[in-house]
Amino acid sequence: MTGLTYRATGVDPARAEDALARVRARIAKTKRPEVIGDLGAFGGLFASPGADMVLVATTDGVGTKLDLARLFDRHEVVGTDLVHHCVNDALAMGAEPLFFLDYFSTSRIDKDIFGRVVGAMADACVAHGCALLGGETAEMPGTYGVGAYDLAGFLVGAVRRDALLDPRRVEAGDVCIGLRSSGLHTNGYTLARAIVARAAAAQGKDMLAVLRARRPDLDGESLGEALLRNHTSYLAPFRALRAVATIRSIAHLTGGGWEGNLPRALPEGLGAVIDRAAWTVPSLFRVLAELGRVEEQEQWDTWNMGIGLVVIVAAEDAGAAVAAVPDALVIGRVESARDGERRVRFA
Amino acid sequence: MTGLTYRATGVDPARAEDALARVRARIAKTKRPEVIGDLGAFGGLFASPGADMVLVATTDGVGTKLDLARLFDRHEVVGTDLVHHCVNDALAMGAEPLFFLDYFSTSRIDKDIFGRVVGAMADACVAHGCALLGGETAEMPGTYGVGAYDLAGFLVGAVRRDALLDPRRVEAGDVCIGLRSSGLHTNGYTLARAIVARAAAAQGKDMLAVLRARRPDLDGESLGEALLRNHTSYLAPFRALRAVATIRSIAHLTGGGWEGNLPRALPEGLGAVIDRAAWTVPSLFRVLAELGRVEEQEQWDTWNMGIGLVVIVAAEDAGAAVAAVPDALVIGRVESARDGERRVRFA
Repeated sequence: MTGLTYRATGVDPARAEDALARVRARIAKTKRPEVIGDLGAFGGLFASPGADMVLVATTDGVGTKLDLARLFDRHEVVGTDLVHHCVNDALAMGAEPLFFLDYFSTSRIDKDIFGRVVGAMADACVAHGCALLGGETAEMPGTYGVGAYDLAGFLVGAVRRDALLDPRRVEAGDVCIGLRSSGLHTNGYTLARAIVARAAAAQGKDMLAVLRARRPDLDGESLGEALLRNHTSYLAPFRALRAVATIRSIAHLTGGGWEGNLPRALPEGLGAVIDRAAWTVPSLFRVLAELGRVEEQEQWDTWNMGIGLVVIVAAEDAGAAVAAVPDALVIGRVESARDGERRVRFA
Repeated sequence: MTGLTYRATGVDPARAEDALARVRARIAKTKRPEVIGDLGAFGGLFASPGADMVLVATTDGVGTKLDLARLFDRHEVVGTDLVHHCVNDALAMGAEPLFFLDYFSTSRIDKDIFGRVVGAMADACVAHGCALLGGETAEMPGTYGVGAYDLAGFLVGAVRRDALLDPRRVEAGDVCIGLRSSGLHTNGYTLARAIVARAAAAQGKDMLAVLRARRPDLDGESLGEALLRNHTSYLAPFRALRAVATIRSIAHLTGGGWEGNLPRALPEGLGAVIDRAAWTVPSLFRVLAELGRVEEQEQWDTWNMGIGLVVIVAAEDAGAAVAAVPDALVIGRVESARDGERRVRFA
């Protein structure tokens, strides 16, 4: 009987090291002046902002969009998405990003895929002036199917204490500004995939064929392409809006859709009335809803329906806000919540 | 054909909410004065320490110890371990913990298990004066086997800039102080499980029987019990050592064992000579090595072998250090690294 080695059991720390070496140069580009030392220490080091600042910490995953990224060999998408998702959650509190860390977990590290995912994260960090300060790569044989992996992102941002967004400042009569989404972003993919699977079964095709078919009702795009568009980052429009308007609060429309997220940006007792005619729901949502016969309320409780971020401003600032950001739309207003009713009402 | 709903596809945001509700009171106990607002915002808020401080950020998982925790229905262990692992990585840079966030990912949330894991994290945070500031719970049908889940932890600590540990301060002649581990902590479990599986096959038993059998060579303990001891937190001894000695640097012995971690606490050109006679390697390691015929070097490159943390102090501080912490041992000293040789030499 030969002796067991760690490598023989499927874990090879050298593989993680080697995979990381391939993206080290891209990670190095994320360095900011506040970063102290290099990767490889037990913790990433970042000079603290002053005591007049508030740290904003957020953690996210990208859900089963991972399965689609794998199916289409588009691993960069989920790396970028993870950073964008975290950046948006931080700016929803008024914060600018400082640093990001990632957790990459798989049964057996594929160096190429790891490099593409983490490389995309690093590039997204550079684009947002955010340091990629560290990460953990876990090789856990037997936990994931062949080629599958899971991702978690952690981001810390900062905001001056007097610029911290606080839903309690929102008043009835404030205006909801909507910023368009690029698609499902990173939420509701399990529902989308179930819809595609059902459509495939009904048509006697396999799922990949349905995902790959170019569709006239998607302007010639395929469902796969439409579902793999990146989670939009709203940092640039957030900065533009903040420059011209007093932002009262922000809702990032992710898991739980409208009713699950917009009330998080409102104080108790207030709700919002949203004018669905203010924008056209993108055809991706309509096609999915139709294929899956998904009821109207279920759609709005699951997906963002074309609006990824809702920024609440005082009524007198609304004009300046939409003028400053070409993509911004007035989509509704804040009003008293009605007892026993949902807090987001569609008009 | 009935309409599809998100719940019908296996994702139920209400389940995550409900699971979280069960541990909200325990999470609330982790609140520190710097925490602003409550859970439920898009990001957790924490008043920044001053600009004379350095933030230390770390992310960790607990690897395939998860499988053992599940097998023995001991889910609290991995929740606690995750916090302890992160706390130790932060203190290895000299930092005290500030706040923690977790990522819990599974195919279908089991509210009971989620509550036990996250509840244990919250309790461990309380014990370390660390705020549990947020988390993400991902329900990803099809990604994990039935009952399986993955965990990632993210911790931010802080240290005064002039107290930041820096391996470059280490000099030849400095002394290595070892602090005992409770077992494998959270590393090398895939190797341990492969060993148990092989032993089970050789004995014609199932793995659980081998894990449950009380063993004379483990003082009557079973392998399962020994493998499920908590990752030791070193925050208390770290504080005690810091009070009496100038700590030069610290190595947390995790994945990669001695050669993989001790050099991370040393400057280039220096190595360490470790006296293995300074402590008795706990019987768990000996039993595993024997059952798996694991070679000596492989053991020390994978497991901590009974020492979880190595604290490097100036020679003149060594006496005070071991006097201050009952569990601390002088285990070696720093010396020049030898060209082309490993940086950790065992004498």
